[in-house]
Amino acid sequence: MNRTAMRASQKDFENAMNQVKLLKKDPGNEVKLKLYSLYKQATEGPCNMPKPGVFDLINKAKWDAWNALGSLPKETARQNYVDLVSSLSSSLESSSQVEPGTDRKSTGYETLMVTSEDGITKIMLNRPTKKNALNVEMYHEIMHALKAASKDDSAITVLTGNGDYYSSGNDLTNFTDIPPGGVEEKAKNGAILLREFVGCFIDFPKPLIAVVNGPAVGISVTLLGLFDAVYASDRATFHTPFSHLGQSPEGCSSYTFPKIMSPAKATEMLVFGKKLTAGEACAQGLVTEVFPDSTFQKEVWTRLKAFAKLPPNAMRISKEIIRNREKEKLHAVNAEECSVLQGRWLSDECMNAVVNFLSRKSKL
Amino acid sequence: MNRTAMRASQKDFENAMNQVKLLKKDPGNEVKLKLYSLYKQATEGPCNMPKPGVFDLINKAKWDAWNALGSLPKETARQNYVDLVSSLSSSLESSSQVEPGTDRKSTGYETLMVTSEDGITKIMLNRPTKKNALNVEMYHEIMHALKAASKDDSAITVLTGNGDYYSSGNDLTNFTDIPPGGVEEKAKNGAILLREFVGCFIDFPKPLIAVVNGPAVGISVTLLGLFDAVYASDRATFHTPFSHLGQSPEGCSSYTFPKIMSPAKATEMLVFGKKLTAGEACAQGLVTEVFPDSTFQKEVWTRLKAFAKLPPNAMRISKEIIRNREKEKLHAVNAEECSVLQGRWLSDECMNAVVNFLSRKSKL
Amino acid sequence: MNRTAMRASQKDFENAMNQVKLLKKDPGNEVKLKLYSLYKQATEGPCNMPKPGVFDLINKAKWDAWNALGSLPKETARQNYVDLVSSLSSSLESSSQVEPGTDRKSTGYETLMVTSEDGITKIMLNRPTKKNALNVEMYHEIMHALKAASKDDSAITVLTGNGDYYSSGNDLTNFTDIPPGGVEEKAKNGAILLREFVGCFIDFPKPLIAVVNGPAVGISVTLLGLFDAVYASDRATFHTPFSHLGQSPEGCSSYTFPKIMSPAKATEMLVFGKKLTAGEACAQGLVTEVFPDSTFQKEVWTRLKAFAKLPPNAMRISKEIIRNREKEKLHAVNAEECSVLQGRWLSDECMNAVVNFLSRKSKL
Repeated sequence: MNRTAMRASQKDFENAMNQVKLLKKDPGNEVKLKLYSLYKQATEGPCNMPKPGVFDLINKAKWDAWNALGSLPKETARQNYVDLVSSLSSSLESSSQVEPGTDRKSTGYETLMVTSEDGITKIMLNRPTKKNALNVEMYHEIMHALKAASKDDSAITVLTGNGDYYSSGNDLTNFTDIPPGGVEEKAKNGAILLREFVGCFIDFPKPLIAVVNGPAVGISVTLLGLFDAVYASDRATFHTPFSHLGQSPEGCSSYTFPKIMSPAKATEMLVFGKKLTAGEACAQGLVTEVFPDSTFQKEVWTRLKAFAKLPPNAMRISKEIIRNREKEKLHAVNAEECSVLQGRWLSDECMNAVVNFLSRKSKL
Repeated sequence: MNRTAMRASQKDFENAMNQVKLLKKDPGNEVKLKLYSLYKQATEGPCNMPKPGVFDLINKAKWDAWNALGSLPKETARQNYVDLVSSLSSSLESSSQVEPGTDRKSTGYETLMVTSEDGITKIMLNRPTKKNALNVEMYHEIMHALKAASKDDSAITVLTGNGDYYSSGNDLTNFTDIPPGGVEEKAKNGAILLREFVGCFIDFPKPLIAVVNGPAVGISVTLLGLFDAVYASDRATFHTPFSHLGQSPEGCSSYTFPKIMSPAKATEMLVFGKKLTAGEACAQGLVTEVFPDSTFQKEVWTRLKAFAKLPPNAMRISKEIIRNREKEKLHAVNAEECSVLQGRWLSDECMNAVVNFLSRKSKL
Repeated sequence: MNRTAMRASQKDFENAMNQVKLLKKDPGNEVKLKLYSLYKQATEGPCNMPKPGVFDLINKAKWDAWNALGSLPKETARQNYVDLVSSLSSSLESSSQVEPGTDRKSTGYETLMVTSEDGITKIMLNRPTKKNALNVEMYHEIMHALKAASKDDSAITVLTGNGDYYSSGNDLTNFTDIPPGGVEEKAKNGAILLREFVGCFIDFPKPLIAVVNGPAVGISVTLLGLFDAVYASDRATFHTPFSHLGQSPEGCSSYTFPKIMSPAKATEMLVFGKKLTAGEACAQGLVTEVFPDSTFQKEVWTRLKAFAKLPPNAMRISKEIIRNREKEKLHAVNAEECSVLQGRWLSDECMNAVVNFLSRKSKL
């Protein structure tokens, strides 16, 4: 384009005006005001309109923008107009290379299906035959998908499960794959991975919504305390049998659950392993709303599509002001929980419980 | 009176004794003990009673007070008695100038009705034709009324609305009254006013109760997190459409709401703009109790009058011990919210949303 | 035993092997692995087994333990085996002196019944004719019983009441027993005792469960915010009439209650003295679950016995990770509440209220 030219010709200016009409995406009011003011300055010179009345907000904004250009020469204004349009076109082109239409499909994920449309990025756990148990690969892919979603142009992000389960939690066969460094190294690596994984949920910058389509266990339950909204089918259950497995709470649940549902209710879940129905989880504040399974997907997605149409910056900033205040604390809790859990994984109580679980499972 | 006399005569003393009988208001046990001890010292000299038994609390208190005067000369005791009564009478007189009987009416308020009786100061939003929307004047008058209520002799303070609405929130025509400094100055002044306004609710020293007679919107909802009790008619609804207006939460709600109702429920209100019924708001802990509209005023005021008869210092101190721990945090949250909102008010999202709202409204 | 011998004989070794079979208590997997590895090293020398596969967790653990002994001489391994068994036997003997069987009965308590069986230590308030009001002796005995329970081998600890009441709270006759130093000293001593008492609940290291068999008043209610679970009969009520008595909240309730049940609900209880039913207390999160009185004891103890069978270290550590984060804050709150209450006890409002209460009571 004409970025390097020192003076744009009248032809360049007209081309730029035509390009503006072809922009597929609204460049936003700030840019539009800038274009308006440069156009006026280039064609009429310094602002010559009477200042609009105080109630006339739109004309006041246009007047302000034009008037702010002062005595900028017409030629410079023309040049700036052409440059601005040029930068808009190229930035919109390059972003469309990343996003080929509305039905962008996930590629390269083994354990997830990731799609983005209607302003919503949907991350679906996709190991239905394993009840969407989280193996090491799925931990890594979820982190990758969250990082991508935080930068794409969706307004909200959704996590859900494919099949009957939301997720059966940490895949216990993770425990049997012992590296050369032995169980100590296994435990250490597990703690590092878990901490990084939970950290991605703490830091996620947009509204993050769980669509809990069925039973949820362990880490898939505790993480819900870090979501901004949780919609559940009445088929969903919420189960954190940490003590039964000789383990201790993670996902910041030792902090978020007592805050969400009072210590007396949180202890029953996290320490005594009580399984909650969707209705109970909703009454405790862990779930935002429960829907009958027959209409669950329809009702939830109708609602989510309406949310995704709200001003995205307002939503992002509103989440930020709520979350930022807690971020430092949440990261400290996460680090502490992972460190305690690392010790637990090496304890007799945990080893015995996992062995018993796996032998029961292999017999069935 | 005799305040300047160095020695009170027997006549002064007798006058003072008569004045005590005429006091319309109980001066409290501490003062009464003081009067008792000075009277005894003035008429009988140093304490000559045997010390009462440990179970005889009242006589023990009287004995302690008298005995504490030691060898104070009779004349000094008489003088002190006269001075004490004199100060009581004048303080009660001057306070009665402020409070002419039980039906003290607000004077000087344009947007409020303020009354004080039965130990309750009632601040009623009084722009029923505007659904009690808060314009700039009402912000200032509420602050003034709260400051007066914090110093008057009422035990509790109540905020309520006149007419069908509790309050429709911030009057959006506030946005159209642009000062000479332009929208930046407008936004800055708005943030300063809002911060000072919310600060008055954070610092209010007595039990503060909302009587929510009808729909509540925006700032009138978020402030409820700073009240000590919230009673609602079943006609009331609770709506905070901040994102819809390109704005972000205020009134400390980004901190109080997630604490009160769990983050998953708070986000649905504050970020996605869900409107709650009175029953829902009560289940979430935002409202203390809901009453049928037909009996609402009767039931609530019966209860409030009973509360107002409880020992006022105990109530004030109990509120203090709960609130003081949070005060510093709440002021920091308030400052942060106002600063973020100042930025929001200048954003395209907000300007477009407000313009759309006002044009829709002007068409209807 | 053979602790001082430098070389254990084959006879010592065989004796030790027999002793292991007689151990009444499982020494835990860690010790058993150690015994296994020393036995193998003593009888076969350095590890000569092929390394087991990654899925064969138990054999892998045994192999690791044996292999870790490297080239330790057979004699040293034999000696270490004998020493280890010797230390086990003596530690298990000494612990069995502390705990004579499952039906250990409380001895030396005047106001409590303390028993320990099925992994549960049960502390029962035992002044049924006084509605289990807490007199000074009971405060001291509860502290003693909690300290003993924190060190015994039970998995969980339960507090409950004998008779119709859970507890009617602080015994108001405590107020009438004035020491020679007068009411100031009385108030000071009361604040010191209360602070120490509440501190024991803050620091209790195992799951602590309240079995609320009937009405609960005052301190017996506020302390519930420090329990890990609260089960209540539907006969139970929850009443904190602090303002009515001119007093202010204790037991950390000024901090825990607003967190548990939202400020608007907490104020109604703590400042306005509203009495809650068991169902209301459960809806507010103060109570974990309510049971019909007819089946209360049966259902609750069935559940508690199941909890007591869960891995005790996992439960203790899970409680720890939840509680430790709050401990410093809770101790500060406790100190502040006791200091405020010390002032309240000396106030007219409190003295008058207590005198009125006791005179009404003496008339009835």
